[in-house]
Amino acid sequence: VQKWLVMGSAGVQIVPVLGIPAVDQTTDLAAEICSATAKGVPEGFCDGDVLVVAQKVVSKSEGRVVTWDGDASTKQQVIRGEATRIVRDTNSLIITETAHGFVCANAGVDRSNSEPDQLVLLPNDPDRSARGIRDRVHAATGKQIAVVISDSFGRPWREGSTGVALGSAGITPILDLSGTKDWAGIDLETTRICLVDMIASAAELVMPKAGGIPAVVVRGIDSSWVNDARSNVATDVIRPANKDLFR
Amino acid sequence: VQKWLVMGSAGVQIVPVLGIPAVDQTTDLAAEICSATAKGVPEGFCDGDVLVVAQKVVSKSEGRVVTWDGDASTKQQVIRGEATRIVRDTNSLIITETAHGFVCANAGVDRSNSEPDQLVLLPNDPDRSARGIRDRVHAATGKQIAVVISDSFGRPWREGSTGVALGSAGITPILDLSGTKDWAGIDLETTRICLVDMIASAAELVMPKAGGIPAVVVRGIDSSWVNDARSNVATDVIRPANKDLFR
Repeated sequence: VQKWLVMGSAGVQIVPVLGIPAVDQTTDLAAEICSATAKGVPEGFCDGDVLVVAQKVVSKSEGRVVTWDGDASTKQQVIRGEATRIVRDTNSLIITETAHGFVCANAGVDRSNSEPDQLVLLPNDPDRSARGIRDRVHAATGKQIAVVISDSFGRPWREGSTGVALGSAGITPILDLSGTKDWAGIDLETTRICLVDMIASAAELVMPKAGGIPAVVVRGIDSSWVNDARSNVATDVIRPANKDLFR
Repeated sequence: VQKWLVMGSAGVQIVPVLGIPAVDQTTDLAAEICSATAKGVPEGFCDGDVLVVAQKVVSKSEGRVVTWDGDASTKQQVIRGEATRIVRDTNSLIITETAHGFVCANAGVDRSNSEPDQLVLLPNDPDRSARGIRDRVHAATGKQIAVVISDSFGRPWREGSTGVALGSAGITPILDLSGTKDWAGIDLETTRICLVDMIASAAELVMPKAGGIPAVVVRGIDSSWVNDARSNVATDVIRPANKDLFR
């Protein structure tokens, strides 16, 4: 029952990884993250750490950028090219479904924190991106960590964006507490918790929107959840359209 | 531009407040939180801390509970009594709008972590609850903290719940970065970030669903955001129905 209890009173630490240089397709992103973490994060990578990496640098390192002439209509074409369905379309905002199944504004296409003549697209397979970084960190350090690729999405009903996980590796994305009981012995009702999205939000607390800190180490997550080789965002977090009440 | 940058590499700490006893209407919740924080959180409360308090204990301390006979149809009546509008209604799930303007399952009515014959309702005015706790902590400790009342809500498109702020005091709920530029000098596009929801998610990483840790101290949030006497969740986070694309 108490699986989701952080041991002791030390709690969870959200540590920004400082000193990662500007990223493009020539960057060995995992190597830069390992180097910066070894220098700037206490004890470097430790078993059970969750490394959160901003989508923007993952996309850039994978070459998921297109040249842009600065014209709004060209950007609209790129957005519509990345969308598999338009969910809502207003003068100021396009809500799209992407090939991954994400529902988000502008199909995730963004121009902030990139070269002035570039648009940055979402990674083709963010779960694979996360697995790749996790494997590289393991090869370089011998540590078993989890990786979450994060982005900021808006949502219905509430203003402002929050962190979301686009991809994950080595962590249980959804904590399913069905069948567990609370401290009074009563079955829990709200039983499915999106751990990876909550970790993405926690990490974004130390990622300034203006850029410069594209990676964060989240330390202290219960180790029983950071050891899952099979689950990822595509299989566990994206709600199938036929089960969704708002598409 | 760099306002949302945590200073140095210490980052943010998420510290559970251990040792708070079971709460009911006779509990002086703020006093119990102050006592437990003084004992168990390093240095006790510090200026700029964000105290996150679980909705369940706030509701119970305010007497927002109703006696329940255990019958599902009685619970349905309570839920419909708390709802001002039914947004979706399926066999297994009712999505409601509450008098506060929250859109959530079951109008926030829940029975976990409470007496077997009780249903717990949302606080009548969670922003006021947050202000009350903030004022009490200031009176007891002299420290200027922020308070967030947290809950877990599901959402469209993605499985699992994440943390949300029902109420807040002493903190800017939405960081509006309109007009700021990124590190390449380009205007930021995603400019509104829901700080209080991200803090609620971060805090819930150390709040086991099974109960027992209803308060968390989040330390290290940029101090320029933890000094806002005017803004709260009702005014800043709840999106008006006429601006919402999904109601």
